[in-house]
Amino acid sequence: MSSSDSKPLKIAVAGLGTVGATVVKLLQVQASLIEARCGRPIVVTAISARDRTKDRGFDASNLVWFDDAAEMASKADADVVVEVIGGSDGIARAVVDNAIAAGRHVVTANKALLAIHGAEIARAADAAGVTIAYEAAVAGGIPIIKALKEGLAANRIDRLHGILNGTCNYILTTMRQTGRDFADVLAEAQALGYAEADPSFDIDGVDAAHKLALLAALAFGRLPDFASVTVEGIRHIAADDISYAEELGYRIKLLGIAERAANGSVAQRVTPVLVPMDTPIAAVEGVYNAVVTHGDFVGSTVLEGRGAGDGPTASAVAADLMDIAAGRSSPMFGVPLDRLETGQTCPISARRGEYYVRLMVQDKPGVFADLAAILRDCDISIGSAIQRARSDSAAVPLVLTMHETSEASMQDALTRITALGSVSEPPRMIRIEKFA
Amino acid sequence: MSSSDSKPLKIAVAGLGTVGATVVKLLQVQASLIEARCGRPIVVTAISARDRTKDRGFDASNLVWFDDAAEMASKADADVVVEVIGGSDGIARAVVDNAIAAGRHVVTANKALLAIHGAEIARAADAAGVTIAYEAAVAGGIPIIKALKEGLAANRIDRLHGILNGTCNYILTTMRQTGRDFADVLAEAQALGYAEADPSFDIDGVDAAHKLALLAALAFGRLPDFASVTVEGIRHIAADDISYAEELGYRIKLLGIAERAANGSVAQRVTPVLVPMDTPIAAVEGVYNAVVTHGDFVGSTVLEGRGAGDGPTASAVAADLMDIAAGRSSPMFGVPLDRLETGQTCPISARRGEYYVRLMVQDKPGVFADLAAILRDCDISIGSAIQRARSDSAAVPLVLTMHETSEASMQDALTRITALGSVSEPPRMIRIEKFA
Repeated sequence: MSSSDSKPLKIAVAGLGTVGATVVKLLQVQASLIEARCGRPIVVTAISARDRTKDRGFDASNLVWFDDAAEMASKADADVVVEVIGGSDGIARAVVDNAIAAGRHVVTANKALLAIHGAEIARAADAAGVTIAYEAAVAGGIPIIKALKEGLAANRIDRLHGILNGTCNYILTTMRQTGRDFADVLAEAQALGYAEADPSFDIDGVDAAHKLALLAALAFGRLPDFASVTVEGIRHIAADDISYAEELGYRIKLLGIAERAANGSVAQRVTPVLVPMDTPIAAVEGVYNAVVTHGDFVGSTVLEGRGAGDGPTASAVAADLMDIAAGRSSPMFGVPLDRLETGQTCPISARRGEYYVRLMVQDKPGVFADLAAILRDCDISIGSAIQRARSDSAAVPLVLTMHETSEASMQDALTRITALGSVSEPPRMIRIEKFA
Repeated sequence: MSSSDSKPLKIAVAGLGTVGATVVKLLQVQASLIEARCGRPIVVTAISARDRTKDRGFDASNLVWFDDAAEMASKADADVVVEVIGGSDGIARAVVDNAIAAGRHVVTANKALLAIHGAEIARAADAAGVTIAYEAAVAGGIPIIKALKEGLAANRIDRLHGILNGTCNYILTTMRQTGRDFADVLAEAQALGYAEADPSFDIDGVDAAHKLALLAALAFGRLPDFASVTVEGIRHIAADDISYAEELGYRIKLLGIAERAANGSVAQRVTPVLVPMDTPIAAVEGVYNAVVTHGDFVGSTVLEGRGAGDGPTASAVAADLMDIAAGRSSPMFGVPLDRLETGQTCPISARRGEYYVRLMVQDKPGVFADLAAILRDCDISIGSAIQRARSDSAAVPLVLTMHETSEASMQDALTRITALGSVSEPPRMIRIEKFA
């Protein structure tokens, strides 16, 4: 098979945070299994991180240390540079650029870098004849990159959706299970280490959007287009929304959704959505990630696993290294650069679907009539309504779901509703996705 | 990349049932996508089936027809022979043997052939330097073979379990949803085409056991050992069992389970089991298949999709062909033949776990005392009990769950209970699996 070349594959690891250290440990612990499975050893030869003195739990005595990761990428005795520093620019970018310039393959977990600079990096790698592998960049424990590039490659994928951020899913799951508020659960997640001190990348949907841009590129054979992803986070999801959703038969999940329309245009969005309780994605709880793809021959496929964490991420990095060691490769975005599609972007305003809206309305005659008139004028039909009187307040919550309508009509209606004097807070709108 | 060789990959298809015909159609419909993704065209050059006159929905005018599939495997102008005839011996075996002898790669959906003769076939293929690919043989729509060989390859897998037979899962799901009996639902499944006229391969667990033997081989780096799989089907599952299970917080699924013990011995079994309602596998319903793997670095990964049907199976066959076209390969059972493990088989009698038992007992004093004494003598502790009086019958159902005990103790207890005069039917025992 591919084991004719049995020389060790030499690896330089840039970044020795918990992920980088776990990659080094994995390659040591599983050395004989890896050598058996890919026909040659994979050995770390060089490492780089800021603090040289820290004990990272592995023997570094035979490894060449570089203080400057970018220099290591150029000069180390290595076939592959593993970039696990992170960040869309700066040192991570320099490491990848230098590795490519020096003719080395790159394995990276860096979703931000590839989502934003993927096109340039792909061109440089193509010109240099090196591989850029990034299974660890999206939903680490789930081999979804390989599934899209190889396992499901005989299909035209028309849509995919996924839970791509474990922090958000943990927060939404905990809010549902405990009835507690967003801010409270976020603070706990931070204390437990499930959320960063500055959580905005996660909870505002940016991290999920980076990953979605990569999945959409692969699924549809395009360059990643992060700038055109509609992004909305979970800060505004209230405990009430979660319980109303449950009453209506739904769970609230932060989903990344990518769809290709018949005309070839592609829609990409990361938003909280209501999903029917009996769909596979609704059952994915806590820090787990999942991606559901739909292909024309294979139908729906669900891949679920841990999205982050040292072990799953290191597992994905090592799988990419094993592919390189065994001589297995596929183009960075599924097809060669000159075969990529370049269709239009489909804006969120073109969406058609159902909607959930929660209003705080004054508990007096005529309010419902005003709302109903606005919805009628916007050609929106009410699917269900929940209203309960609250004795201690002048304003009461009113929850409506709307039958399928256009996003443009819905936005128009929300603007008009906001202008009503009888509505005391901005309306909370959450899209409903049934994945029929 | 691997596209330096851009000559078409030539395919001979043995067997033009619905799967074979769909493979040919897929390769025609997706021709440009396939060529873009794997760097060269994949073209069918030869076909073979019994009936030459049947319209199969594709243009066969440019294809060379062979009446004898085994002859085609030897003589066709083809790089790869696709075997979708089925059956562990006979013509399917001859096709595969002849293809290997002629130096052609083989892509097959034939789980029975590989589970039973996989060792011999692997040795012959290894000697001939050809690839045997079989993604379609296990849970067609799920790229689980590739996941075990490549995506999760950096992990030591210690256990896996899966719903591997869509017919059984459809029957169990429908029984639960409708409360109807096994025989009734089976007859309907046969009428709908979800079950064969002779359903025994499916409902007695044999088909799932073939697939489990292949998954266990891959997960643990061994040759398939179908003979040592404990197999028990779903004929004896009563509607009552399903509703009692639900009352206790479980669903009943036919699962294939493979586990590697610390001493390297491997347990393989296909049996109905009670699984907690909130586990991912319990949520997999209808004709869907799913496989849950557990690796030391990655943790739990769940892959779910359609297990059978023309489209998913053809998708898997085509993915294997695309790997061959792109020059991607990995050893048939994950590691080269001389690196396979040869540990002991762990018999079902060594299992430890919880158990569900349903008895029909006479509704009179002392019966429960007799049962409790037997369980005590077998060192088995009762976890829960459900008994409801039935006015119209001398015998009443008694459902017990047992705390963790050994299979040997449980079998001993069941033998003694059966001998009691006060128990009017053989006890129905179903294992409980919690996958903690």
